[in-house]
Amino acid sequence: MTIFIDMDEVLADTYAAHVERYNRDFGASLTLEECEGREVWQCVPREHIPAVRGHCHLPGFFRTLRPIEGAVETVRELSSKNDIYIASAAMEFHDSLKEKAEWLDEHFPFIPWHNRILCGYKHILLGDVLIDDRKKNLMNFRGRGLLYSSPHNVQTNGFERVNNWEEVAKILL
Amino acid sequence: MTIFIDMDEVLADTYAAHVERYNRDFGASLTLEECEGREVWQCVPREHIPAVRGHCHLPGFFRTLRPIEGAVETVRELSSKNDIYIASAAMEFHDSLKEKAEWLDEHFPFIPWHNRILCGYKHILLGDVLIDDRKKNLMNFRGRGLLYSSPHNVQTNGFERVNNWEEVAKILL
Repeated sequence: MTIFIDMDEVLADTYAAHVERYNRDFGASLTLEECEGREVWQCVPREHIPAVRGHCHLPGFFRTLRPIEGAVETVRELSSKNDIYIASAAMEFHDSLKEKAEWLDEHFPFIPWHNRILCGYKHILLGDVLIDDRKKNLMNFRGRGLLYSSPHNVQTNGFERVNNWEEVAKILL
Repeated sequence: MTIFIDMDEVLADTYAAHVERYNRDFGASLTLEECEGREVWQCVPREHIPAVRGHCHLPGFFRTLRPIEGAVETVRELSSKNDIYIASAAMEFHDSLKEKAEWLDEHFPFIPWHNRILCGYKHILLGDVLIDDRKKNLMNFRGRGLLYSSPHNVQTNGFERVNNWEEVAKILL
């Protein structure tokens, strides 16, 4: 099978990094639970929104993300029997591109460069499965879409949902 | 139609840049004609090969390429009636990623970020047309492949060939 896997909030814990950085920079104590159903920038006072939205432009933000629990192990197992492509809608943020490539070198060295995709729209991807946390990416994908749970998408319906990498393993391995 | 367009040697004159930089750095006088049927690094003395192969890692190399004649105008026209995606197999060269994004901002600002793809393999692209100078990219593409002429591919057969952007315009506009 050809399986496309999103990066932010599927392989890399971008959501938690937004919350942690916001709490640190503003002495706040926002929790993931409080954010459910919303983006992080929607959970802060209006005057803090530009700072949170600006995280994506901070040097090192994408480079230092933690891998999501179980992602490395499950993707490694999947890659032994499938064509795995990592596909991130990253082209909006120029400085993220190299950081994402380096992050993959560090955490997913077994996914070679020709199986990595930095893009925008994902409906132009031809394959069997797309694992993604965003409805907008899944809705026009031609294959089987798996919605990877993230605080922002807890209320999203209409897609086959996976809550963690154990569940992905059960379905695809 | 959904049309994918390669960057190097289709939109950007990478081949000429290799030759010019080699001639400048080594006081040589290599011509495009001498290179026909080969990569630039295959046309220089053995001891110069690492330098030519290293061009891809030089800061500014991809950022300063000249657009190929007619590319900007024809792609702009095509984009008014088609979904145009620019797809470059760039993931091998980390430092090229930002340079390519900036280059597109400068020369193809009318192609928005979500229609730009930095990838490796291109057979995972789902669309109608791929314009590319490399047989390896065209051979597994599911749609119509157009081989864009470049000095290195003059002897490549088996694909519908376009010699310049005028010919692309005649076929697709």
